[in-house]
Amino acid sequence: MNIEVCYSPQSYPLFHNPNAVVVVIDILRATSAITTAFFNGVAKMIPVATVEEARSYKENGFLVAAERDAEIVEGFDLGNSPFGYMNTKVKGKTIAITTTNGTQAINAAKSAHKVIIGSFLNCDTVIEYLKKEKKDVLFLCAGWKNKFNLEDTLFAGAVAQALVYKYDFTTTCDSTIAAIELYKVAKHDLFGFLANSSHRNRLAKLDLERDIKYCLTPNQCPVLPVMEGKFLVKGN
Amino acid sequence: MNIEVCYSPQSYPLFHNPNAVVVVIDILRATSAITTAFFNGVAKMIPVATVEEARSYKENGFLVAAERDAEIVEGFDLGNSPFGYMNTKVKGKTIAITTTNGTQAINAAKSAHKVIIGSFLNCDTVIEYLKKEKKDVLFLCAGWKNKFNLEDTLFAGAVAQALVYKYDFTTTCDSTIAAIELYKVAKHDLFGFLANSSHRNRLAKLDLERDIKYCLTPNQCPVLPVMEGKFLVKGN
Repeated sequence: MNIEVCYSPQSYPLFHNPNAVVVVIDILRATSAITTAFFNGVAKMIPVATVEEARSYKENGFLVAAERDAEIVEGFDLGNSPFGYMNTKVKGKTIAITTTNGTQAINAAKSAHKVIIGSFLNCDTVIEYLKKEKKDVLFLCAGWKNKFNLEDTLFAGAVAQALVYKYDFTTTCDSTIAAIELYKVAKHDLFGFLANSSHRNRLAKLDLERDIKYCLTPNQCPVLPVMEGKFLVKGN
Repeated sequence: MNIEVCYSPQSYPLFHNPNAVVVVIDILRATSAITTAFFNGVAKMIPVATVEEARSYKENGFLVAAERDAEIVEGFDLGNSPFGYMNTKVKGKTIAITTTNGTQAINAAKSAHKVIIGSFLNCDTVIEYLKKEKKDVLFLCAGWKNKFNLEDTLFAGAVAQALVYKYDFTTTCDSTIAAIELYKVAKHDLFGFLANSSHRNRLAKLDLERDIKYCLTPNQCPVLPVMEGKFLVKGN
């Protein structure tokens, strides 16, 4: 089983592999929020690409999350802060969601065989799933507006390292080698390693340090969100 | 002065900065070959995107280099092996050149304020130039068919580290931070670090280990190729 890492939704067509499981990653914060939502009992989520689509779901009575440039879009119920999903009002609900990067990445991978949601919060659950599936793996980093970002790459490196070192996965993909090497440098202090990163600085200005620390703490939400048709559902 | 690293010609429009000096990097082997050519007395080079353009230069009597998938295209004088340029027959000549990745990257940056050619072979010359220019710097990695590659990233990291640590350059760009961290891991044994990389494996099959070792040895050719109109010329 082969591993590749794609650093930007824009590059997805270069990496498309009809047999691969695609792991969509947007650590700060879409895939961390989605993982948290399912851990807190959300029934389904509908990732949509545009604010307009999100608005039409809202007009049809859905609970709707919409984030652009790290803030909740005016008029919507939720953004992409995981803390917004830690309450009983989301339990059993179907939530439509659009975010700056994460839902764009999910959308880019819509032709994939299988799409799952990865974050540090469900890290071991993702590893366990990929180990059992025994298929090629493509990590799709959401990045920031199609640019490379560190935190998504570090998560790809964490999972890729486990798959290569502990199980029978292989890679000759340079972006995977780089992700593993960066994770080896950063793993003992992810928060410190990201001190100068662009997105941590962006969120720090909005006083979101608590969000960042939460999103970097592994295995708090052992659930596996997976795409089924247009819906994200709990796959385990 | 701000530093950014763009990992793929495809992503250049996301990084375009009208005030930046763009350093085009294709370590294995286009920018190493170009640096070597100027060190050996080539007068001018004309980077062209397609084999058809290269062919029309040949029909007009030029010396022409054409490489695709690491091999010389049939019917052309030279490829992108630096060793092809270490002889007296290139001295004083104007050479048209097209390669799989490097000349595509030069072409992607054609709207840039200034384009220079970087390789380990002219590493200190590049640092010295950027230090004197005092402008923003954008490293444009040629990659492999628009995918990230390690060797171009390591060179970007080597120069970025020198500019940030020794001079007054700054960065908040995640791909620059990653490049510097990867260079710090790899710098004591670039050849060994690249042992599993995709392009080193691709070239190893063609018995090009001598090329790789040469291309990773710093400061053998203290020249600075720069774009002037459609020509590459010696800028120092």
